[in-house]
Amino acid sequence: MLQTRNGKRTAQAALKIACDLVDEGMRTEQEAVAMIDPRNLDTLLHPQFDAKALKAATPLGKGLGASPGAACGKVVFTADDAVAWKERGEKVVLVRLETSPEDITGMKAAQGILTVRGGMTSHAAVVARGMGTCCVSGCSEINMDEENKKFTLAGQTFNEGDPISIDGTTGNIYGQIIPTVPATIAGEFGRVMAWADKYRTLKVRTNADTPADAKKARELGAEGIGLCRTEHMFFGEGRIDAFREMICSSTLEEREKALEKILPMQQSDFEALYEALEGNPVTIRFLDPPLHEFVPTEEADIEALAKTQGKTVEAIKSIIAGLHEFNPMMGHRGCRLAVTYPEIAKMQTKAVIRAAINVQKKHPDWKVEPEIMIPLVGEVKELKFVKKFVVETADAEIAAAGVDLKYEVGTMIEIPRAALTADDIAKEADFFCFGTNDLTQMTFGFSRDDAGKFLTAYYDTKIFENDPFAKLDQVGVGKLMEMAIKLGKPVNPKLHIGICGEHGGDPSSVEFCHKIGLDYVSCSPARRRSFVR
Amino acid sequence: MLQTRNGKRTAQAALKIACDLVDEGMRTEQEAVAMIDPRNLDTLLHPQFDAKALKAATPLGKGLGASPGAACGKVVFTADDAVAWKERGEKVVLVRLETSPEDITGMKAAQGILTVRGGMTSHAAVVARGMGTCCVSGCSEINMDEENKKFTLAGQTFNEGDPISIDGTTGNIYGQIIPTVPATIAGEFGRVMAWADKYRTLKVRTNADTPADAKKARELGAEGIGLCRTEHMFFGEGRIDAFREMICSSTLEEREKALEKILPMQQSDFEALYEALEGNPVTIRFLDPPLHEFVPTEEADIEALAKTQGKTVEAIKSIIAGLHEFNPMMGHRGCRLAVTYPEIAKMQTKAVIRAAINVQKKHPDWKVEPEIMIPLVGEVKELKFVKKFVVETADAEIAAAGVDLKYEVGTMIEIPRAALTADDIAKEADFFCFGTNDLTQMTFGFSRDDAGKFLTAYYDTKIFENDPFAKLDQVGVGKLMEMAIKLGKPVNPKLHIGICGEHGGDPSSVEFCHKIGLDYVSCSPARRRSFVR
Repeated sequence: MLQTRNGKRTAQAALKIACDLVDEGMRTEQEAVAMIDPRNLDTLLHPQFDAKALKAATPLGKGLGASPGAACGKVVFTADDAVAWKERGEKVVLVRLETSPEDITGMKAAQGILTVRGGMTSHAAVVARGMGTCCVSGCSEINMDEENKKFTLAGQTFNEGDPISIDGTTGNIYGQIIPTVPATIAGEFGRVMAWADKYRTLKVRTNADTPADAKKARELGAEGIGLCRTEHMFFGEGRIDAFREMICSSTLEEREKALEKILPMQQSDFEALYEALEGNPVTIRFLDPPLHEFVPTEEADIEALAKTQGKTVEAIKSIIAGLHEFNPMMGHRGCRLAVTYPEIAKMQTKAVIRAAINVQKKHPDWKVEPEIMIPLVGEVKELKFVKKFVVETADAEIAAAGVDLKYEVGTMIEIPRAALTADDIAKEADFFCFGTNDLTQMTFGFSRDDAGKFLTAYYDTKIFENDPFAKLDQVGVGKLMEMAIKLGKPVNPKLHIGICGEHGGDPSSVEFCHKIGLDYVSCSPARRRSFVR
Repeated sequence: MLQTRNGKRTAQAALKIACDLVDEGMRTEQEAVAMIDPRNLDTLLHPQFDAKALKAATPLGKGLGASPGAACGKVVFTADDAVAWKERGEKVVLVRLETSPEDITGMKAAQGILTVRGGMTSHAAVVARGMGTCCVSGCSEINMDEENKKFTLAGQTFNEGDPISIDGTTGNIYGQIIPTVPATIAGEFGRVMAWADKYRTLKVRTNADTPADAKKARELGAEGIGLCRTEHMFFGEGRIDAFREMICSSTLEEREKALEKILPMQQSDFEALYEALEGNPVTIRFLDPPLHEFVPTEEADIEALAKTQGKTVEAIKSIIAGLHEFNPMMGHRGCRLAVTYPEIAKMQTKAVIRAAINVQKKHPDWKVEPEIMIPLVGEVKELKFVKKFVVETADAEIAAAGVDLKYEVGTMIEIPRAALTADDIAKEADFFCFGTNDLTQMTFGFSRDDAGKFLTAYYDTKIFENDPFAKLDQVGVGKLMEMAIKLGKPVNPKLHIGICGEHGGDPSSVEFCHKIGLDYVSCSPARRRSFVR
């Protein structure tokens, strides 16, 4: 024998081989699970291009493969167009310079998303992975002219309605329609995943912001929600208006009045979440993004808001201009909002507690125990300050209802200083949840939305071998995580610890999380499926 | 005796008492130095309001006291106006929404600077402290209308030419002229500082970007330059044009051609720096800010640039738009520029080495040994990659000149990950210099320019008792610094370590730096005077 190497096999084949080996008594179930490379499984769960058609096609360009799967359709340039075209039965691919929270409905309507700017954890990429929608991001070769609804790539001009296909695994972009075939899950896949569930100790939660997502995730086996981003609930019909009124209020009374309008809507969302989770844990993160992400940009919307508020258009514009930040990622967000506007966190506390009380009443056999998560804490006094009025508000609600309800107040560990001072923070926190997206940004000192500009050079020069936003940097970010656990656990032995960044869906990062003693990982439903049946 | 407390005394009186006690043999020189609160000394070094006139005045509003001293003059709204008014003999106070590097000449021409936005380490505040000019920043009560050259504060409208006075120590703003009296340094001050110099072990360097600053600092006793920010040299006449050509180049050849124009200018600046420092160490930091800080914003300048480059105005605008960043502080800057455009760092290396060779030849008795500092390193491979071509370029220059010249290549420690992996980084670095401005931003996860919006609430609620950008956060940021030293020193015992953030000028922070084993502190000339005679 002169040479040996691993036999290459598709994910399907690997599953079949593993099952056969167990059936023939050659391998134990544990060994069979360990034989499967989890990275292969993701591909199994998304539509792929028809192999024959793909072979005949030549890519025009390449971006980052930001969310797996394949998509084809007609080019549209705005979220509204995506919705309108879909309604009349067209398959569309949404192409944008970059996406923003206002594009969500359009992103949902599209088969795939293609952006000119942004990295693996840009808005488009994160949201697309969350939705399980194919996405190619950061294709800077594209010369975009959003105003005139056209772009050029490799000399070819694309107008609205032109055919395009994108591959969210390879990042390839094609100037034609390549048919896709849906994902199929063969029986072996289910068997292997059942064995994995049987032997693992790490719990698997899901990131879910809507009752629909939560329900779907639960059906797929999620053992809880590790991250519910409450701000995503503010963009719906009727809510965004009230939230904008809150932002543009001049007094505490005005702000509270606007928040009162949102309270019942948040409460009903939370009730539906608790219903979907059937007594499994739900971690609700309080408002995180800076307020300027919510304000209107269109003249007509600004005028409408001015009218509702009884203010002049200039006054509203001045408020919006005042929200401008040089570095929004490091700006007035997270618990800094709760410190400056406690009324927001109080409203969210009421919504969480009232929802939990109602659902617990309906299902006395479930254990509904809200986990309130305060984001972006960097100093224990910050958490203490916010926790004080959260607890006061929660206890008052519970007392008023005359029930007995337990709840927890914990924090994200996503600021380096939180990890460095975790012994102090653990005194006030019932749980830690590593927000490794932000923690990676701050530890490396680069913004995930801007890193695309230089990361290619970093890969080319072998300075980086992986995207630190996709695969956890165990040397630096991981060191902070280990430090936080070592400092926090002795102070508060009951402290439970999870992760809810993108890394919660990456196999090697999950392995590291298991090794350093985390209790659970939480990731977007589409990624979670790789771990949970 | 029922109660005792410290007798309050002015800085002048404290110095007189200390000297008298030594003269009378009641205290040793060391004890006398320790009796002086260094915070008092800063005030002695700047002009103050005439006490009687101040008593009669009522402040209209208040911002942050961002750079000490008092100033009065006529309101101007642009840097150009500040220069023009000064030229015709007027004293002016420059009032701006915020300042940018393009305002430098106007800031120099003004008696004081007042900004609506920005915190203690905003551009205006940092530059003003560097210049020793009075500055009040972040007065958000001001309703600014830059376009029409007017603003309102407390109901009063200020137009161009209206009288104003600002106090950079208290942050007070007055709508009238309050005369100022210049700083006087009595003989006792000199005596006490001479004792301080005699007993201290920590070296004191200065941050200086121009030969003029360096000369002044040297006269005042600086023992070296701890930070020369080379980018400040790019804004001068003739240089900024060449630098903009470099940015808007399409090919490496074009970029190199533009850099060739800058090389002799940088070299002559460095020569003047070495001349001024007379053989004392000079640390030169390579290009740090993102490129978009250098591009023109005025239509006429863009047109001129397009003409020089032989490009269309649209092409130039598209290049400028492409430089946009979501979070510039965490963007494509520091050594990331050197990784993507090695030619910039190579040009800077040539300029440094050629200058050092020339000055060493002229002064064989001096020891000219350049310290090249690579900013924003977060990973050792990054430093290794950049160092490789810096060393190649430097060695080639030295060999071509047929001389023997030693030089060092070190790095800033300003990214949390650099501190966390300092054992790796120390293998490649001759020195560490803590950039505590950025390290504080990343460790706390807030941008110094945006923090003004919520820091007031943090002080009011006692979450913070100090501005972490003014007084070093020993618990969090300091922990990273200690970690970096503990990891780095054993790997490279020759490693010398300094600090060049704003904290290098804050007494309690300097004490901490001494305690954890730093070799030197470096601060702006005006602050350095508190420590060096």
